Amino acid sequence: MTLAVAGLGTVGAGTVKLLHENRALIAARAGADVAVGAVSARDASKNRGVDLSNFQWFDDPVEMATQADADIFVELIGGSGGAAKAAVLAALGAGKHVVTANKALIAHHGAALAERAEAAGLVLAYEAAVAGGIPIIKVMREGLAANRFDRVYGILNGTCNYILTAMRETGGEFADILAEAQALGYAEADPSFDIDGVDAAHKLAILAALAFGSAVRFEDLHIEGIRDISALDIKSVDELGYRIKLLGIANRQEGRAELRVHPCLVDKSAPIAAVEGVTNAVVAEGNFVGSVICEGPGAGAGPTASAVVSDVIDIARGIKLPTFATPVSSMPVLETSPMDGHRGCHYIRLTVHDQPGVIADVAAALRDEGISVESMLQRGRGTEADGAVPVILTTHETTEAALNRALSRISAMSTTLGPPCVLRIESL
Amino acid sequence: MTLAVAGLGTVGAGTVKLLHENRALIAARAGADVAVGAVSARDASKNRGVDLSNFQWFDDPVEMATQADADIFVELIGGSGGAAKAAVLAALGAGKHVVTANKALIAHHGAALAERAEAAGLVLAYEAAVAGGIPIIKVMREGLAANRFDRVYGILNGTCNYILTAMRETGGEFADILAEAQALGYAEADPSFDIDGVDAAHKLAILAALAFGSAVRFEDLHIEGIRDISALDIKSVDELGYRIKLLGIANRQEGRAELRVHPCLVDKSAPIAAVEGVTNAVVAEGNFVGSVICEGPGAGAGPTASAVVSDVIDIARGIKLPTFATPVSSMPVLETSPMDGHRGCHYIRLTVHDQPGVIADVAAALRDEGISVESMLQRGRGTEADGAVPVILTTHETTEAALNRALSRISAMSTTLGPPCVLRIESL
Repeated sequence: MTLAVAGLGTVGAGTVKLLHENRALIAARAGADVAVGAVSARDASKNRGVDLSNFQWFDDPVEMATQADADIFVELIGGSGGAAKAAVLAALGAGKHVVTANKALIAHHGAALAERAEAAGLVLAYEAAVAGGIPIIKVMREGLAANRFDRVYGILNGTCNYILTAMRETGGEFADILAEAQALGYAEADPSFDIDGVDAAHKLAILAALAFGSAVRFEDLHIEGIRDISALDIKSVDELGYRIKLLGIANRQEGRAELRVHPCLVDKSAPIAAVEGVTNAVVAEGNFVGSVICEGPGAGAGPTASAVVSDVIDIARGIKLPTFATPVSSMPVLETSPMDGHRGCHYIRLTVHDQPGVIADVAAALRDEGISVESMLQRGRGTEADGAVPVILTTHETTEAALNRALSRISAMSTTLGPPCVLRIESL
Repeated sequence: MTLAVAGLGTVGAGTVKLLHENRALIAARAGADVAVGAVSARDASKNRGVDLSNFQWFDDPVEMATQADADIFVELIGGSGGAAKAAVLAALGAGKHVVTANKALIAHHGAALAERAEAAGLVLAYEAAVAGGIPIIKVMREGLAANRFDRVYGILNGTCNYILTAMRETGGEFADILAEAQALGYAEADPSFDIDGVDAAHKLAILAALAFGSAVRFEDLHIEGIRDISALDIKSVDELGYRIKLLGIANRQEGRAELRVHPCLVDKSAPIAAVEGVTNAVVAEGNFVGSVICEGPGAGAGPTASAVVSDVIDIARGIKLPTFATPVSSMPVLETSPMDGHRGCHYIRLTVHDQPGVIADVAAALRDEGISVESMLQRGRGTEADGAVPVILTTHETTEAALNRALSRISAMSTTLGPPCVLRIESL
């Protein structure tokens, strides 16, 4: 079984290393020797800490996809379009199976690529695209295949979880912790892909397609990040018995799904609340199995290479399944519900002028929308120069539409300073 | 794809129910209709809450294994020998794939049965035998197949974990909590199989065979249960920063493995320390992926049926892998290390007469074996009628041989009352 590996960054080099170090046991498990035959990257001269001298070199991954003598094309270039997509299409066109770690590609073009693969009788595998080393694709597609899934959710971005964990442990503000994470290599120089929830959304789109056996339109996802969370929020939710986690959640009721990525308040006693730092975790809820949670490293060379090569071993073993568990030709498009109709409890932080009547006005705005307040807490007493004080509220269950109307009215009050911070409280 | 289901207890009835309720989605995922054709149990007249009227009935599972018109024989009888073993052998002899939930059977006869299956080109699947609904067999055999495993461990018995959790939460003694667990249906009338560690050992033997690609002799496992743990131990380890968990641990160094089931002190911050109640959890450590933990329901009709039917779907999908990931014909027997050579830190609870010099004698016995004491605490001061007081010690790393020599000497002292309680402190 010969591989052509496109992209020799951290994951590509890790994959080459793994295949070399574990070669004997992989051969025993796969029932065939598995070896790299060709590689491609931008710069042939760069030292990547692995010996590439025995591999055929290609400057162009598309050329490698068509011309290399290989059974499997391993796409580790990244990005939702461009060279990655062109190379994967070329590989499938040339009769090669494809293994990819590219979440953006599968989230945006998974159904179209799966159609090509399935029509050609080829495998398109993407275990490494979701939750790094955790084999959650295999768990859901095969290990829990007997179940109808009604909900799947998880911590799908290690950078965000690291930042939220560090904010809680140190009491620091978001911007400072982000800067530290960047210095430590846990966050990119341009962090928006991670901290604005897009990376987690790519993974959630893939999990939802698999869980519901449906094609997901990426634009149907509701996506929020963690930029607006303050040290005060972290402290306040802790006192209320919660932790803040950026979750990706896919749930389905009566044929319609909610697909949403946003920071959530989760009860401290929920298993997912204990998942800290860069660790990822996914909870799959099946109608017979109940709740199964898988935790592990969500990124990094070793874990991602583990997932890539496990896909390769599957192919060598002759495991050939539809990309999203059921044939893509019979997958309907997933119908989603608008967030306006989402029902839940909420945490709200307002900044208001510390003067008589303000709380009464806020309470009235909520009451008029039928929103019942569970707790309200004014923190401090006009300690800031301008007399501004934060007010922390939690509500009982309401729709987002009602909440948004109430918040518009509250924001328009002359006593309200700046936009409110609103976080959903998730029952897990 | 037609099934013959032997055994219609909780799991058997759950499996019939699952196949009925999820029939359409299973057909879509399996690429074939999957249905029960025949069943067998002791009593045909018993009401099991599922409709059996369309199935052929057999009184004898062996007869069903040979005569029923079925592709897959599902063994849910239980027990390491007897009817279960005879029926599985008959089914393999008759060219039927076998799916079983029987941990005792696979732990004791897995290699021999795998030989039969592999020689006949049949599948012998046993996902339900380990950790109930958690698809840990698939995770290790396929999802993490790229890795060398150096250690795998877990909470493999829900009854023990329930008892230990309840002891901590209520402060109650073992015997009282066990009686409550029996009343609630979490423990059997004869609980020894669970609380003495045998059930967990069956599961560990299977995980070890899979992790190390070796045949495991069940008698090579070191097995201890949780009967000797007192409320005082639970309280003391809590103060020391630990939780007590019954773990099954398989680790390998320099070609030799330790296979052991016993109560362990684990640091409160370890993910497995947070796994409470009847939940099971398995941690697999791979040389590239690092640590992956899977948690979920370890028993019960729904979770176990989920695992059984996922195995069935694998067979329907044409997934045919060696029973223990590598062909059984090439599996060496696993060489294990004696526990005498095991190195670790320990927790020791002694009961001694409260009189001068006792602590000095205990300390001297440990010193003479080169065992260094990390902490020592005398609890209370002769409050019991006979002047007996508990002394709690923790040691730095030592071998079991040295510790046992020191404990023999301590036990022989006239000031020592009753046997010591010794618990291993596990670094996870």
